[in-house]
Parts: sequence; structure tokens; C-alpha cells
Amino acid sequence: MANASRDPILLTPGPLTTALSTKVAMLRDWGSWDSGFNAITATIRERLLDIVSAQGSHVCVPMQGSGTFSVEAAVNTLVPRDGHLLVLINGAYGKRLAKLAQMMGRRTSVFETPEDVPTTAADVERLLAGDRSITHVGLIHCETSTGILNPLVDIASVIARHGKRLIVDAMSSFGALPIDAQASPFDALIAASGKCIEGPPGMGFVIAKKSALETAAGNCTSLSLDLHDQWQYMERTTQWRYTPPTHVVAAFAAALDAHAAEGGQPARLARYERNCDMLVSSMKSLGFRPFLDPAIQAPIIVTFHAPADPRYTFREFYDRVREKGYILYPGKLTQVETFRVGCIGAIGPDEMRQAVNAVRDTLTEMGIERVAPHDVK
Amino acid sequence: MANASRDPILLTPGPLTTALSTKVAMLRDWGSWDSGFNAITATIRERLLDIVSAQGSHVCVPMQGSGTFSVEAAVNTLVPRDGHLLVLINGAYGKRLAKLAQMMGRRTSVFETPEDVPTTAADVERLLAGDRSITHVGLIHCETSTGILNPLVDIASVIARHGKRLIVDAMSSFGALPIDAQASPFDALIAASGKCIEGPPGMGFVIAKKSALETAAGNCTSLSLDLHDQWQYMERTTQWRYTPPTHVVAAFAAALDAHAAEGGQPARLARYERNCDMLVSSMKSLGFRPFLDPAIQAPIIVTFHAPADPRYTFREFYDRVREKGYILYPGKLTQVETFRVGCIGAIGPDEMRQAVNAVRDTLTEMGIERVAPHDVK
Repeated sequence: MANASRDPILLTPGPLTTALSTKVAMLRDWGSWDSGFNAITATIRERLLDIVSAQGSHVCVPMQGSGTFSVEAAVNTLVPRDGHLLVLINGAYGKRLAKLAQMMGRRTSVFETPEDVPTTAADVERLLAGDRSITHVGLIHCETSTGILNPLVDIASVIARHGKRLIVDAMSSFGALPIDAQASPFDALIAASGKCIEGPPGMGFVIAKKSALETAAGNCTSLSLDLHDQWQYMERTTQWRYTPPTHVVAAFAAALDAHAAEGGQPARLARYERNCDMLVSSMKSLGFRPFLDPAIQAPIIVTFHAPADPRYTFREFYDRVREKGYILYPGKLTQVETFRVGCIGAIGPDEMRQAVNAVRDTLTEMGIERVAPHDVK
Repeated sequence: MANASRDPILLTPGPLTTALSTKVAMLRDWGSWDSGFNAITATIRERLLDIVSAQGSHVCVPMQGSGTFSVEAAVNTLVPRDGHLLVLINGAYGKRLAKLAQMMGRRTSVFETPEDVPTTAADVERLLAGDRSITHVGLIHCETSTGILNPLVDIASVIARHGKRLIVDAMSSFGALPIDAQASPFDALIAASGKCIEGPPGMGFVIAKKSALETAAGNCTSLSLDLHDQWQYMERTTQWRYTPPTHVVAAFAAALDAHAAEGGQPARLARYERNCDMLVSSMKSLGFRPFLDPAIQAPIIVTFHAPADPRYTFREFYDRVREKGYILYPGKLTQVETFRVGCIGAIGPDEMRQAVNAVRDTLTEMGIERVAPHDVK
């Protein structure tokens, strides 16, 4: 690597570039039984509730592992064994949600739209009217496969009107996009440490409706992922039920400090929007075309069509941009060749501009002339 | 805290005190798709196989979460849905293993001995002869509840002779006590990053017999904990299937470097034995009595009887020792009042001696005169 002395900038949707003040919090060993550490856990739980205005109505239960572990914990604990989960899919994370529900033996239905088409409230209205046996609906707020944003508030309202229950994967939106637990009623909303709060990866958390969690004892078929048991133990002892990732937890608390100091969710969103605007406009000037219509593009991660030039391979493109200090992310679509660039992490528009400069230099090195597969929108 | 400027020494069985060189490895953000990070993962997997002489016969599959997540992943993936697991119990971790197997719906039998009595090969011989339907046996190598060591080699031999399969929770022994995959045949042996390798907590790993894992597709009822899927994905892509705890993984690799530099498992064991000897002899000189007979005491964690003096409460005792810079661990026994002191982590006999000095000063402060409930053995 050309600049091995300097860490590359991660333009990936988690793990992402974290602030040094966040990483430095990992330079201490905490006892998992110690009151100092348990105070950190308690603070994290309260702050996460505040971010989505969920105090009083909901509780926050952290869980070891990646975000998917927390999604699985929420479904396995909150959907009763005789429940029926409808999953709204327009990307890989929706598919994953349906798969984990099926694997644990819950009755699961799916509704799939193309990867560039959001699910609508009208879709959900029709689906719920058409099948009264559905008890829960699973939604991906921002589908990281593409960066598409699904209309949470509208869908949540329809589900509430039908008296059904909503489980939201808010992995890549929590802390950046506005979410209000009172305006968008949900039984569970799930995210993780290494996303828009800009902590290191290693823990997830579920914002769970208290009344739903209270009646969920005995649902879960997994000991490790039993969210009710995790919650009860934490309430009783202030400790995590099994060994917590102490260093990650401490760094996540530092990341929450930085989130608050920046101005909370509105300020975080504003910075990501500046990042996204800089990225998209600069990439367009090189001839790149975003996969999504701007109206449904969340400022979290942007999918670009790969250059049509026969000299392009993602591997070489990635390696050459990486040599210049920027880590891109591969596409996750099966039908079209794409790559992705994250707008999140402890970075600003300057880093985005420099990253696009590195892309421009890479195109020149590779002799790629034809960047857009079609006319630039 | 009296010495807030200095981190306390953790005398806990994980999380534990790690070396600064291990923690410093967390000061870098890694992309989970990046070849540099994937090379770290590959190195870890190979080194862990080496430590238990499992190259060729076994594969190492890391898993996000605490050690319990990896235990559950091993059972759910390797015990077929119509399998029958016999769990050998003499403490809380054996009970936990049985509970997670029951929760996922596997047929489970238990054999329980008192917490100060190891399971014997003769027990297992009798149990396997008495119930031919048993397919798998679950064993806790070193039961952290007390620190008791169960005879792995002898039990593994009996199980192999019966043509049955062994799953070993080696959480608090791996890397310190000798384990040889050829001398002790097992289908799975499980440990975690934050134990005797002295890394931060946040990931576990399973050393799985390759031939057993190859036929385990479709067994698991959990997507997150599907060890076969995790393995296949890692073999195919060199990446983790879902977001890895990148900082923890990098620090674990640094901890493995330190483990090798110290002289590997034999040297690690020798240091822990010195720690344990210093601890036990110094505590005995204060009048404390270990719960276990020395013959079955692993040099990992020592359970002591609590002082019989009415002025003793664990809470005050713990807080006062903590003020002096040492974090003790509560007992986990229901029948007798005890506390535990870990001998593991990046510490040596000097730290153990100083910790006992802090205990001595605490006894004086609390006015505790009667330390041993009975005569010191």
C-alpha cells in the first residue's frame, strides 16, 4: 500500500472510520461485574432510547454480536411461536430477515419489490387486508444493499391501524435519519454499534416496546439470543447476561458522546447529506450514474453503476483506489454490476472529495474512458 | 476510587487484564471486505488450530458474540435434529450447555456431580453403555464456576471407543492447559477471545472436526449461529459472513502474537501456575481456604470460602479491594458462600502478591478476624 503509514478512510457502511477519541476508549480493560462498567451500559441504554424518543414506552436491550444477531433476537423473542411474520423485501437485508425467521420455524410470508422500488403504505394496506393471519411485519428502513429508503412513518401507521406489530431493521439509519417511536409505532427497532453512531462493530441493540417484551418470555428458541432473558437479567443486575464486548461497549459510549456533542441526529444527518451531495455531484462529473432515483436515496450509502468499459474490473478498481487511501465497497445486486460508496463515519465532505479524486486518478491509470453505461441522468 | 489514575488489575476469568500491545491494535479501523483484514482472520484461524494440534483433522470457525454464542452455534450445527446430547455437569456452565440444547429442541440428558467432584471416565463409560441412543456428549473442560478441571483425555477416549461424538467447552482452558486434538478426539472444542489467549472479549471460535462439519449443513435452526454456513462463507470469500468485530479481531491477533512470543501454551500455563501458587499460598497465610481439593484445581480461577466473620459482606469486601486497584469476582455457588480470584490475564505473581496484600489490608479495615470457616487444609 502506497501510504501504509496512514490508515485508509473507510467508505463502507460499517465497519466505518471512527474518531480517534472513540478508539482510545478501548485502551482500558473493564471488569464485566464492575459498577463502573455497568454505569456505562446503563447510560448507553438511556441515550439510545432518547435518540428515537422512546423513553417510557420502550426499553433498550443491547446484544453481543453483529447487527444480524440482534435482528434474529428480536424476531425469535417477539414473534410468538404461532405468529405469522410478513417481511417486506427490496434487497439482501430483507431477504436475510425472512430467512432467519424461516430457519427458526416461524411462519413467514414475503412481499418483494425490485431493488430500486420502495415498499409503499398502500402495499402494506393491501397485504394486511388480504391475510388476517399476519401478526407481525418486518421492514428494512434503509436497505444497505442499495441505499434505498423505505417510508417508515407511513408503513408504521398502516400497521398500527390494523392492530399488527412492526419490527424494523434500522441498522444503517439509526442515529442519522429521524425516527420517532411515537410517530412510527413499533414493537422492535434494531441497530448496531458500528453504523451511524460511529462506534466499533461488535454489539447490536433492540429498542423494544416494553409491553411487547413483557409478554415475550418463553418465545425464544435460542438461549444466546433470548432478548427477554437478556433484558430481565440486565434489569435485575445492571450487568450483561453473558460476557459483554467490554472494549466495544466503552468505545460505543464514547461514540454516543461525540454524537451528542455534534448536535445529535439532526447534525449527523446534515453532515451525511453534505457527504452524499459531494460524493454524488463529484462522481457524476466523472460520468458515474447512481443506481437509485434521488427521491428514494438515503444519504447513507450510494450505489453506482460500474463503468461499461471492458477494462474495468471491480477488483483492480478497488485495489487501486485502496492504494490511494480509500476503501470502497462492492455492489450487492445480482442483476446489474455496481459498486457502493458509504457516506457515513467520522468523515466529512473533504474526505469525499479526495476519495472521488482517487477514483478519477484510478480511471486514468486503468485507461477507462467509458464510465456511464447510459446517459447520465 | 483511590487510584483512579491507574487502571485496576482484573482478577476475573475474562474479561481480564490485557497487554497494552493488545489494546493498541484496536486503534485502527479495518474494512471487513479488505484483504488486509481477511489476512488477519486467516492467520488467527491457523494459529488456533496449531495450539491444539488440530491441523488437517479440524477447521477453526470464528463466531461473533460471547463464548456462549459459539457453544450454542456448535451444538445447533453439529448435533443433528434427531441427535441426543448427554451433558456432563458440575457447575453453571454445564447447566448452561444443557439449557441451550433443550431450548433449541435437541433431545438432552444430563449427568450431574457436585461442584467439587469431576466427572470420571468410568461415569461416562457407564452412561454410554446404559443409553445407546446418545449421539453426542457435552463436557466443560475447566468449569469456571469453581475452577474444577474435568479429565478431558480420559473422557474423550471413552467416547471415541463408543463411537460417539464429543463437544468440549474449553472456554477457560484453551491456550493455557494442554489440549491435543489427536489425543482427545472431539467434534467441537469451543473457546473465546477474552480468556487465556488474553485478548479483548467479543468473539468466540469453534475448532470443529472437518468431517463432522462437512455433513452438518441444514442442522442449525439459527441463521446467525449457523456454524456450517459461517465456515462455508469464510472458505469461499476469506471474509466473515456478517460484520465481524474488526477491532476485537485485530487485538486478538496481537494477543496470539504475544502468546507465541511468551512460548505458547506451556509457557502460558507455567505463568498461570506461578500466579495460582502465589495466590493460594498467600491467601492461606491469611487464613483463607480454597473450595477445591488441589488435585482437581485448575490454575485458572480459584474459589475461596468467604470469611465466617459476621462483619463480612462480599459487596463491601469487593469495593474495598477494588479501591486498592484489584477487581475480584463473586462466587457462583448456591450452597456455600464463596468468592473467586482469577489467575489469568497479562499479570504475574507480583500482581497476585499485591492483590493478596490488598485483601489483607481490607480484612483489617473491616475488622474481620475469623477468616476460615473451618481449619485450613
